[in-house]
Amino acid sequence: MITLWELQGKEGRRYSLFSWRTRMALAHKELKFESRPVCMSDKAAIAFSGGKTVPVIRDGDATVRDSWKIAEHLEAKYPERTLFGGEIGRGVTHTFNTLVDRTVVPAMLPLIVADIYERVEPADDAYFREMMEKIVRMTLEEARAKREESMKRLTRTLEPMQALLKRQAWICGAQPAYGDYILFSVLQWARVMSPQQVLEPQDPLHGWRERMLDLFGGFARNVPTA
Amino acid sequence: MITLWELQGKEGRRYSLFSWRTRMALAHKELKFESRPVCMSDKAAIAFSGGKTVPVIRDGDATVRDSWKIAEHLEAKYPERTLFGGEIGRGVTHTFNTLVDRTVVPAMLPLIVADIYERVEPADDAYFREMMEKIVRMTLEEARAKREESMKRLTRTLEPMQALLKRQAWICGAQPAYGDYILFSVLQWARVMSPQQVLEPQDPLHGWRERMLDLFGGFARNVPTA
Repeated sequence: MITLWELQGKEGRRYSLFSWRTRMALAHKELKFESRPVCMSDKAAIAFSGGKTVPVIRDGDATVRDSWKIAEHLEAKYPERTLFGGEIGRGVTHTFNTLVDRTVVPAMLPLIVADIYERVEPADDAYFREMMEKIVRMTLEEARAKREESMKRLTRTLEPMQALLKRQAWICGAQPAYGDYILFSVLQWARVMSPQQVLEPQDPLHGWRERMLDLFGGFARNVPTA
Repeated sequence: MITLWELQGKEGRRYSLFSWRTRMALAHKELKFESRPVCMSDKAAIAFSGGKTVPVIRDGDATVRDSWKIAEHLEAKYPERTLFGGEIGRGVTHTFNTLVDRTVVPAMLPLIVADIYERVEPADDAYFREMMEKIVRMTLEEARAKREESMKRLTRTLEPMQALLKRQAWICGAQPAYGDYILFSVLQWARVMSPQQVLEPQDPLHGWRERMLDLFGGFARNVPTA
Protein backbone atom coordinates (compact mmCIF):
# COMPACT_ATOMS: atom_id res chain seq x y z
CA MET A 1 0.00 0.00 0.00
CA ILE A 2 1.32 3.42 -1.01
CA THR A 3 0.79 6.43 1.25
CA LEU A 4 0.19 9.83 -0.35
CA TRP A 5 0.61 13.08 1.54
CA GLU A 6 -1.48 15.84 -0.02
CA LEU A 7 -3.16 19.11 0.90
CA GLN A 8 -6.27 19.15 3.02
CA GLY A 9 -8.98 21.70 2.24
CA LYS A 10 -12.32 22.37 3.92
CA GLU A 11 -14.93 19.59 3.92
CA GLY A 12 -12.70 16.85 2.60
CA ARG A 13 -11.43 18.70 -0.44
CA ARG A 14 -8.10 17.48 -1.85
CA TYR A 15 -6.84 20.51 -3.68
CA SER A 16 -3.14 20.07 -4.27
CA LEU A 17 -2.67 20.60 -7.99
CA PHE A 18 0.47 18.50 -8.16
CA SER A 19 -0.98 15.74 -5.98
CA TRP A 20 -3.70 15.30 -8.59
CA ARG A 21 -0.99 14.27 -11.04
CA THR A 22 0.10 11.62 -8.56
CA ARG A 23 -3.49 10.55 -7.85
CA MET A 24 -4.21 10.05 -11.55
CA ALA A 25 -0.91 8.21 -12.06
CA LEU A 26 -1.75 5.86 -9.19
CA ALA A 27 -5.24 5.24 -10.60
CA HIS A 28 -3.79 4.70 -14.08
CA LYS A 29 -1.50 2.00 -12.71
CA GLU A 30 -4.29 0.52 -10.57
CA LEU A 31 -2.24 1.05 -7.43
CA LYS A 32 -4.05 1.42 -4.15
CA PHE A 33 -3.07 4.29 -1.90
CA GLU A 34 -3.95 5.80 1.42
CA SER A 35 -4.35 9.59 1.56
CA ARG A 36 -2.71 11.56 4.37
CA PRO A 37 -4.15 15.06 4.17
CA VAL A 38 -2.02 17.79 5.73
CA CYS A 39 -2.32 21.54 6.15
CA MET A 40 -0.15 23.62 3.85
CA SER A 41 1.43 25.37 6.84
CA ASP A 42 2.18 22.12 8.68
CA LYS A 43 5.73 21.52 7.49
CA ALA A 44 6.46 19.20 10.43
CA ALA A 45 4.05 16.61 8.99
CA ILE A 46 6.19 16.16 5.88
CA ALA A 47 9.62 16.96 7.32
CA PHE A 48 10.55 13.26 6.98
CA SER A 49 10.51 13.75 3.19
CA GLY A 50 13.36 16.25 3.29
CA GLY A 51 11.16 18.86 1.58
CA LYS A 52 8.42 21.35 2.32
CA THR A 53 5.89 20.56 -0.36
CA VAL A 54 3.44 17.81 -1.25
CA PRO A 55 2.93 15.45 -2.95
CA VAL A 56 5.11 13.00 -1.08
CA ILE A 57 4.66 9.26 -1.30
CA ARG A 58 5.97 6.43 0.79
CA ASP A 59 6.14 3.21 -1.16
CA GLY A 60 7.72 0.42 0.84
CA ASP A 61 11.14 1.70 1.85
CA ALA A 62 11.12 4.53 -0.67
CA THR A 63 10.07 8.09 0.14
CA VAL A 64 9.65 10.21 -2.98
CA ARG A 65 8.65 13.85 -3.26
CA ASP A 66 7.79 16.06 -6.25
CA SER A 67 5.07 14.92 -8.64
CA TRP A 68 7.46 14.45 -11.57
CA LYS A 69 9.88 12.32 -9.54
CA ILE A 70 6.96 10.32 -8.19
CA ALA A 71 5.75 9.61 -11.74
CA GLU A 72 9.23 8.44 -12.71
CA HIS A 73 9.39 6.27 -9.60
CA LEU A 74 6.02 4.65 -10.33
CA GLU A 75 6.94 4.06 -13.97
CA ALA A 76 10.23 2.40 -13.01
CA LYS A 77 8.81 0.26 -10.21
CA TYR A 78 5.49 -0.63 -11.88
CA PRO A 79 6.19 -0.66 -15.62
CA GLU A 80 2.81 -2.13 -16.58
CA ARG A 81 0.13 0.34 -17.71
CA THR A 82 2.81 2.75 -18.84
CA LEU A 83 2.54 6.48 -18.09
CA PHE A 84 5.12 7.56 -20.68
CA GLY A 85 5.41 4.78 -23.27
CA GLY A 86 9.21 4.64 -23.19
CA GLU A 87 12.16 7.02 -23.03
CA ILE A 88 11.15 9.43 -25.80
CA GLY A 89 7.64 9.62 -24.38
CA ARG A 90 9.11 10.27 -20.93
CA GLY A 91 11.34 13.03 -22.30
CA VAL A 92 8.62 14.85 -24.25
CA THR A 93 6.20 14.45 -21.34
CA HIS A 94 8.80 16.11 -19.07
CA THR A 95 8.98 18.97 -21.57
CA PHE A 96 5.18 19.25 -21.52
CA ASN A 97 5.24 19.15 -17.69
CA THR A 98 7.63 22.12 -17.65
CA LEU A 99 5.54 24.03 -20.22
CA VAL A 100 2.32 23.56 -18.27
CA ASP A 101 3.96 24.51 -14.97
CA ARG A 102 5.34 27.72 -16.47
CA THR A 103 2.41 28.82 -18.60
CA VAL A 104 -0.92 27.26 -17.59
CA VAL A 105 -0.35 27.14 -13.81
CA PRO A 106 0.65 30.83 -13.51
CA ALA A 107 -2.32 31.77 -15.73
CA MET A 108 -4.78 29.80 -13.59
CA LEU A 109 -3.54 30.87 -10.16
CA PRO A 110 -4.60 34.56 -10.14
CA LEU A 111 -8.03 33.59 -11.50
CA ILE A 112 -8.87 31.20 -8.66
CA VAL A 113 -6.56 32.16 -5.80
CA ALA A 114 -9.23 34.11 -3.90
CA ASP A 115 -11.64 31.18 -4.23
CA ILE A 116 -9.00 28.75 -3.00
CA TYR A 117 -8.40 30.98 0.02
CA GLU A 118 -12.03 30.58 1.08
CA ARG A 119 -11.70 26.79 0.98
CA VAL A 120 -8.37 26.11 2.69
CA GLU A 121 -8.30 24.97 6.30
CA PRO A 122 -8.69 27.93 8.69
CA ALA A 123 -5.27 27.00 10.14
CA ASP A 124 -3.77 27.87 6.74
CA ASP A 125 -5.47 31.25 6.26
CA ALA A 126 -2.55 33.51 7.15
CA TYR A 127 0.10 31.26 5.64
CA PHE A 128 -1.79 30.88 2.38
CA ARG A 129 -2.51 34.58 2.00
CA GLU A 130 1.06 35.63 2.66
CA MET A 131 2.57 33.10 0.28
CA MET A 132 0.09 33.55 -2.55
CA GLU A 133 0.06 37.34 -2.46
CA LYS A 134 3.82 37.22 -3.00
CA ILE A 135 3.45 34.83 -5.92
CA VAL A 136 0.67 36.68 -7.74
CA ARG A 137 2.09 40.09 -6.70
CA MET A 138 -1.25 41.47 -5.60
CA THR A 139 -3.69 41.06 -2.73
CA LEU A 140 -6.34 38.35 -2.90
CA GLU A 141 -8.91 41.13 -3.16
CA GLU A 142 -7.12 42.63 -6.16
CA ALA A 143 -6.92 39.17 -7.73
CA ARG A 144 -10.67 38.80 -7.32
CA ALA A 145 -11.28 42.20 -8.91
CA LYS A 146 -9.09 41.30 -11.88
CA ARG A 147 -10.78 38.02 -12.70
CA GLU A 148 -11.99 38.99 -16.13
CA GLU A 149 -8.47 39.88 -17.20
CA SER A 150 -7.12 36.67 -15.69
CA MET A 151 -9.72 34.61 -17.52
CA LYS A 152 -8.63 36.16 -20.83
CA ARG A 153 -5.00 35.31 -20.11
CA LEU A 154 -5.93 31.73 -19.19
CA THR A 155 -7.98 31.30 -22.37
CA ARG A 156 -5.06 32.55 -24.47
CA THR A 157 -2.73 30.13 -22.71
CA LEU A 158 -5.04 27.16 -23.25
CA GLU A 159 -5.66 27.92 -26.94
CA PRO A 160 -3.00 25.52 -28.33
CA MET A 161 -4.44 22.65 -26.29
CA GLN A 162 -7.93 23.47 -27.56
CA ALA A 163 -6.63 23.29 -31.13
CA LEU A 164 -4.84 20.01 -30.41
CA LEU A 165 -7.91 18.38 -28.89
CA LYS A 166 -9.89 19.10 -32.04
CA ARG A 167 -7.50 16.81 -33.89
CA GLN A 168 -6.59 14.25 -31.26
CA ALA A 169 -8.66 12.62 -28.50
CA TRP A 170 -6.09 12.91 -25.72
CA ILE A 171 -2.92 14.89 -25.02
CA CYS A 172 -1.08 11.55 -25.29
CA GLY A 173 -2.78 10.44 -28.51
CA ALA A 174 -5.28 7.62 -28.75
CA GLN A 175 -5.44 7.01 -24.99
CA PRO A 176 -4.86 9.03 -21.83
CA ALA A 177 -1.48 8.90 -20.12
CA TYR A 178 0.65 11.09 -17.89
CA GLY A 179 0.65 14.08 -20.25
CA ASP A 180 -3.12 14.21 -19.88
CA TYR A 181 -2.86 14.11 -16.09
CA ILE A 182 -0.43 17.04 -16.14
CA LEU A 183 -2.92 19.36 -17.82
CA PHE A 184 -5.93 17.85 -16.07
CA SER A 185 -4.45 18.54 -12.64
CA VAL A 186 -4.67 22.29 -13.27
CA LEU A 187 -8.34 22.08 -14.25
CA GLN A 188 -9.14 19.74 -11.37
CA TRP A 189 -7.48 22.20 -8.96
CA ALA A 190 -9.94 24.81 -10.23
CA ARG A 191 -12.87 22.40 -10.14
CA VAL A 192 -12.20 21.38 -6.52
CA MET A 193 -11.62 24.90 -5.20
CA SER A 194 -13.46 27.44 -7.35
CA PRO A 195 -17.12 27.88 -8.30
CA GLN A 196 -16.08 29.69 -11.50
CA GLN A 197 -16.76 27.97 -14.79
CA VAL A 198 -13.33 28.13 -16.36
CA LEU A 199 -14.29 26.13 -19.48
CA GLU A 200 -17.27 26.84 -21.71
CA PRO A 201 -19.32 23.75 -22.68
CA GLN A 202 -18.37 24.12 -26.38
CA ASP A 203 -14.63 24.22 -25.54
CA PRO A 204 -12.85 21.03 -26.73
CA LEU A 205 -11.10 21.06 -23.37
CA HIS A 206 -14.49 20.75 -21.67
CA GLY A 207 -15.30 17.49 -23.49
CA TRP A 208 -11.81 16.20 -22.79
CA ARG A 209 -12.12 17.05 -19.09
CA GLU A 210 -15.45 15.23 -18.93
CA ARG A 211 -13.77 12.14 -20.36
CA MET A 212 -10.96 12.55 -17.82
CA LEU A 213 -13.52 12.72 -15.03
CA ASP A 214 -15.10 9.46 -16.28
CA LEU A 215 -11.80 7.54 -16.16
CA PHE A 216 -11.20 4.85 -13.56
CA GLY A 217 -14.85 4.67 -12.56
CA GLY A 218 -15.25 8.39 -11.97
CA PHE A 219 -12.16 8.53 -9.77
CA ALA A 220 -11.68 12.30 -10.17
CA ARG A 221 -15.35 13.16 -10.59
CA ASN A 222 -16.62 11.75 -7.34
CA VAL A 223 -14.75 13.96 -4.90
CA PRO A 224 -15.76 17.00 -2.87
CA THR A 225 -15.64 20.10 -5.10
CA ALA A 226 -16.50 23.75 -4.96
CA MET B 1 15.10 8.04 -53.07
CA ILE B 2 12.70 10.53 -51.47
CA THR B 3 12.04 13.90 -53.10
CA LEU B 4 11.49 16.93 -50.86
CA TRP B 5 9.88 20.13 -52.11
CA GLU B 6 10.93 23.08 -49.98
CA LEU B 7 11.34 26.85 -50.19
CA GLN B 8 14.18 28.37 -52.15
CA GLY B 9 15.85 31.52 -50.81
CA LYS B 10 18.67 33.62 -52.21
CA GLU B 11 22.09 31.97 -52.65
CA GLY B 12 21.00 28.44 -51.96
CA ARG B 13 19.27 29.12 -48.66
CA ARG B 14 16.63 26.55 -47.65
CA TYR B 15 14.45 28.55 -45.31
CA SER B 16 11.16 26.74 -44.93
CA LEU B 17 10.66 26.36 -41.20
CA PHE B 18 8.46 23.29 -41.55
CA SER B 19 10.70 21.69 -44.16
CA TRP B 20 13.50 21.74 -41.58
CA ARG B 21 11.40 19.38 -39.48
CA THR B 22 11.23 17.03 -42.47
CA ARG B 23 14.94 17.44 -43.24
CA MET B 24 15.90 16.53 -39.68
CA ALA B 25 13.47 13.60 -39.64
CA LEU B 26 15.00 12.27 -42.88
CA ALA B 27 18.53 12.67 -41.50
CA HIS B 28 17.47 11.00 -38.23
CA LYS B 29 16.23 7.99 -40.16
CA GLU B 30 19.30 8.02 -42.44
CA LEU B 31 17.08 8.36 -45.49
CA LYS B 32 18.54 9.98 -48.59
CA PHE B 33 16.53 12.68 -50.27
CA GLU B 34 16.71 15.03 -53.19
CA SER B 35 15.75 18.66 -52.61
CA ARG B 36 13.43 20.43 -55.04
CA PRO B 37 13.59 24.11 -54.14
CA VAL B 38 10.56 26.15 -55.22
CA CYS B 39 9.54 29.78 -54.89
CA MET B 40 6.85 30.52 -52.33
CA SER B 41 4.64 32.13 -54.99
CA ASP B 42 5.03 29.23 -57.44
CA LYS B 43 1.95 27.23 -56.52
CA ALA B 44 1.99 25.40 -59.87
CA ALA B 45 5.18 23.60 -58.87
CA ILE B 46 3.45 21.83 -55.98
CA ALA B 47 -0.10 21.64 -57.37
CA PHE B 48 0.34 17.86 -57.75
CA SER B 49 0.34 17.59 -53.95
CA GLY B 50 -3.20 18.92 -53.66
CA GLY B 51 -2.00 21.73 -51.42
CA LYS B 52 -0.33 25.12 -51.57
CA THR B 53 2.42 24.77 -49.00
CA VAL B 54 5.68 22.94 -48.56
CA PRO B 55 7.06 20.63 -47.34
CA VAL B 56 5.80 17.98 -49.71
CA ILE B 57 7.54 14.66 -50.18
CA ARG B 58 7.23 12.00 -52.81
CA ASP B 59 8.26 8.62 -51.53
CA GLY B 60 7.69 5.89 -54.10
CA ASP B 61 4.00 6.06 -54.96
CA ALA B 62 3.12 8.19 -51.95
CA THR B 63 2.83 11.97 -52.03
CA VAL B 64 2.57 13.46 -48.55
CA ARG B 65 2.25 17.10 -47.55
CA ASP B 66 2.39 18.85 -44.15
CA SER B 67 5.42 18.30 -41.92
CA TRP B 68 3.45 16.48 -39.23
CA LYS B 69 1.85 14.06 -41.71
CA ILE B 70 5.24 13.50 -43.32
CA ALA B 71 6.74 12.61 -39.93
CA GLU B 72 3.93 10.13 -39.32
CA HIS B 73 4.42 8.68 -42.78
CA LEU B 74 8.17 8.23 -42.26
CA GLU B 75 7.65 6.67 -38.84
CA ALA B 76 5.12 4.18 -40.21
CA LYS B 77 7.10 3.25 -43.31
CA TYR B 78 10.58 3.26 -41.73
CA PRO B 79 10.07 2.27 -38.08
CA GLU B 80 13.79 1.94 -37.31
CA ARG B 81 15.46 4.93 -35.65
CA THR B 82 12.14 5.99 -34.16
CA LEU B 83 11.06 9.64 -34.18
CA PHE B 84 8.35 9.23 -31.52
CA GLY B 85 9.14 6.09 -29.52
CA GLY B 86 5.63 4.63 -29.76
CA GLU B 87 2.03 5.80 -29.57
CA ILE B 88 2.22 7.86 -26.36
CA GLY B 89 5.39 9.54 -27.59
CA ARG B 90 3.67 10.27 -30.90
CA GLY B 91 0.67 11.76 -29.10
CA VAL B 92 2.65 14.01 -26.75
CA THR B 93 4.96 15.05 -29.61
CA HIS B 94 1.86 16.09 -31.59
CA THR B 95 0.78 18.17 -28.61
CA PHE B 96 4.24 19.77 -28.48
CA ASN B 97 4.08 20.39 -32.24
CA THR B 98 0.81 22.28 -31.80
CA LEU B 99 2.18 24.27 -28.85
CA VAL B 100 5.31 25.34 -30.72
CA ASP B 101 3.32 26.27 -33.84
CA ARG B 102 0.96 28.44 -31.82
CA THR B 103 3.39 30.06 -29.39
CA VAL B 104 7.01 30.00 -30.58
CA VAL B 105 6.40 30.41 -34.32
CA PRO B 106 4.16 33.51 -33.95
CA ALA B 107 6.68 34.97 -31.49
CA MET B 108 9.61 34.45 -33.88
CA LEU B 109 7.95 35.65 -37.09
CA PRO B 110 7.66 39.40 -36.36
CA LEU B 111 11.25 39.46 -35.10
CA ILE B 112 12.78 38.10 -38.30
CA VAL B 113 10.18 38.72 -41.00
CA ALA B 114 11.93 41.81 -42.41
CA ASP B 115 15.24 39.90 -42.56
CA ILE B 116 13.58 36.99 -44.32
CA TYR B 117 12.12 39.39 -46.88
CA GLU B 118 15.63 40.50 -47.87
CA ARG B 119 16.65 36.89 -48.51
CA VAL B 120 13.70 35.43 -50.42
CA GLU B 121 13.93 35.05 -54.18
CA PRO B 122 13.17 38.37 -55.95
CA ALA B 123 10.25 36.62 -57.68
CA ASP B 124 8.64 36.21 -54.23
CA ASP B 125 9.08 39.82 -53.05
CA ALA B 126 5.53 41.05 -53.60
CA TYR B 127 3.88 37.77 -52.63
CA PHE B 128 5.89 37.45 -49.44
CA ARG B 129 5.30 41.03 -48.35
CA GLU B 130 1.56 40.88 -48.91
CA MET B 131 1.11 37.57 -47.12
CA MET B 132 3.37 38.31 -44.18
CA GLU B 133 2.08 41.81 -43.53
CA LYS B 134 -1.38 40.28 -43.16
CA ILE B 135 -0.12 37.66 -40.72
CA VAL B 136 1.90 39.99 -38.50
CA ARG B 137 -0.65 42.80 -38.91
CA MET B 138 1.95 45.46 -39.62
CA THR B 139 4.28 46.47 -42.42
CA LEU B 140 7.71 44.89 -42.68
CA GLU B 141 9.17 48.29 -41.80
CA GLU B 142 7.06 48.45 -38.63
CA ALA B 143 8.14 44.92 -37.78
CA ARG B 144 11.78 45.97 -38.11
CA ALA B 145 11.20 48.98 -35.88
CA LYS B 146 9.56 46.83 -33.21
CA ARG B 147 12.32 44.25 -32.98
CA GLU B 148 13.23 44.92 -29.39
CA GLU B 149 9.66 44.30 -28.28
CA SER B 150 9.46 41.16 -30.44
CA MET B 151 12.68 39.84 -28.94
CA LYS B 152 11.23 40.25 -25.44
CA ARG B 153 8.13 38.32 -26.44
CA LEU B 154 10.20 35.55 -27.98
CA THR B 155 12.39 35.26 -24.87
CA ARG B 156 9.28 34.98 -22.68
CA THR B 157 7.88 32.29 -24.94
CA LEU B 158 11.10 30.27 -24.91
CA GLU B 159 11.55 30.47 -21.13
CA PRO B 160 9.94 27.08 -20.29
CA MET B 161 12.22 25.35 -22.80
CA GLN B 162 15.24 27.07 -21.28
CA ALA B 163 14.21 25.78 -17.86
CA LEU B 164 13.66 22.28 -19.26
CA LEU B 165 17.06 22.15 -20.94
CA LYS B 166 18.78 22.90 -17.65
CA ARG B 167 17.39 19.61 -16.36
CA GLN B 168 17.33 17.44 -19.44
CA ALA B 169 19.75 17.20 -22.41
CA TRP B 170 17.15 17.11 -25.17
CA ILE B 171 13.46 17.94 -25.58
CA CYS B 172 12.93 14.18 -26.02
CA GLY B 173 15.01 13.14 -23.01
CA ALA B 174 18.36 11.39 -23.23
CA GLN B 175 18.57 11.59 -27.02
CA PRO B 176 17.21 13.85 -29.75
CA ALA B 177 14.05 12.87 -31.58
CA TYR B 178 11.21 14.55 -33.43
CA GLY B 179 10.24 16.86 -30.54
CA ASP B 180 13.72 18.37 -30.76
CA TYR B 181 13.37 18.92 -34.50
CA ILE B 182 10.08 20.73 -33.97
CA LEU B 183 11.66 23.41 -31.80
CA PHE B 184 14.94 23.41 -33.68
CA SER B 185 13.20 24.19 -36.98
CA VAL B 186 12.12 27.59 -35.63
CA LEU B 187 15.66 28.49 -34.58
CA GLN B 188 17.13 27.17 -37.83
CA TRP B 189 14.64 29.31 -39.77
CA ALA B 190 16.08 32.33 -37.95
CA ARG B 191 19.65 31.15 -38.40
CA VAL B 192 19.26 30.68 -42.15
CA MET B 193 17.44 33.94 -42.81
CA SER B 194 18.33 36.51 -40.14
CA PRO B 195 21.65 38.01 -39.00
CA GLN B 196 20.16 38.71 -35.57
CA GLN B 197 21.51 36.75 -32.64
CA VAL B 198 18.29 35.39 -31.18
CA LEU B 199 19.99 33.28 -28.47
CA GLU B 200 22.61 34.56 -26.04
CA PRO B 201 25.63 32.26 -25.61
CA GLN B 202 24.75 31.57 -21.96
CA ASP B 203 21.19 30.50 -22.87
CA PRO B 204 20.67 26.72 -22.38
CA LEU B 205 18.91 26.78 -25.75
CA HIS B 206 22.13 28.00 -27.33
CA GLY B 207 24.10 24.96 -26.16
CA TRP B 208 21.25 22.68 -27.20
CA ARG B 209 21.11 24.27 -30.66
CA GLU B 210 24.88 23.80 -31.04
CA ARG B 211 24.43 20.10 -30.28
CA MET B 212 21.57 19.97 -32.80
CA LEU B 213 23.82 21.56 -35.42
CA ASP B 214 26.46 18.89 -34.75
CA LEU B 215 24.05 16.00 -35.35
CA PHE B 216 24.33 13.82 -38.45
CA GLY B 217 27.79 15.11 -39.34
CA GLY B 218 26.83 18.79 -39.17
CA PHE B 219 23.82 18.25 -41.43
CA ALA B 220 22.05 21.46 -40.32
CA ARG B 221 25.22 23.46 -39.62
CA ASN B 222 26.80 23.23 -43.05
CA VAL B 223 24.18 25.05 -45.08
CA PRO B 224 23.99 28.60 -46.47
CA THR B 225 22.88 30.95 -43.68
CA ALA B 226 22.45 34.64 -43.08
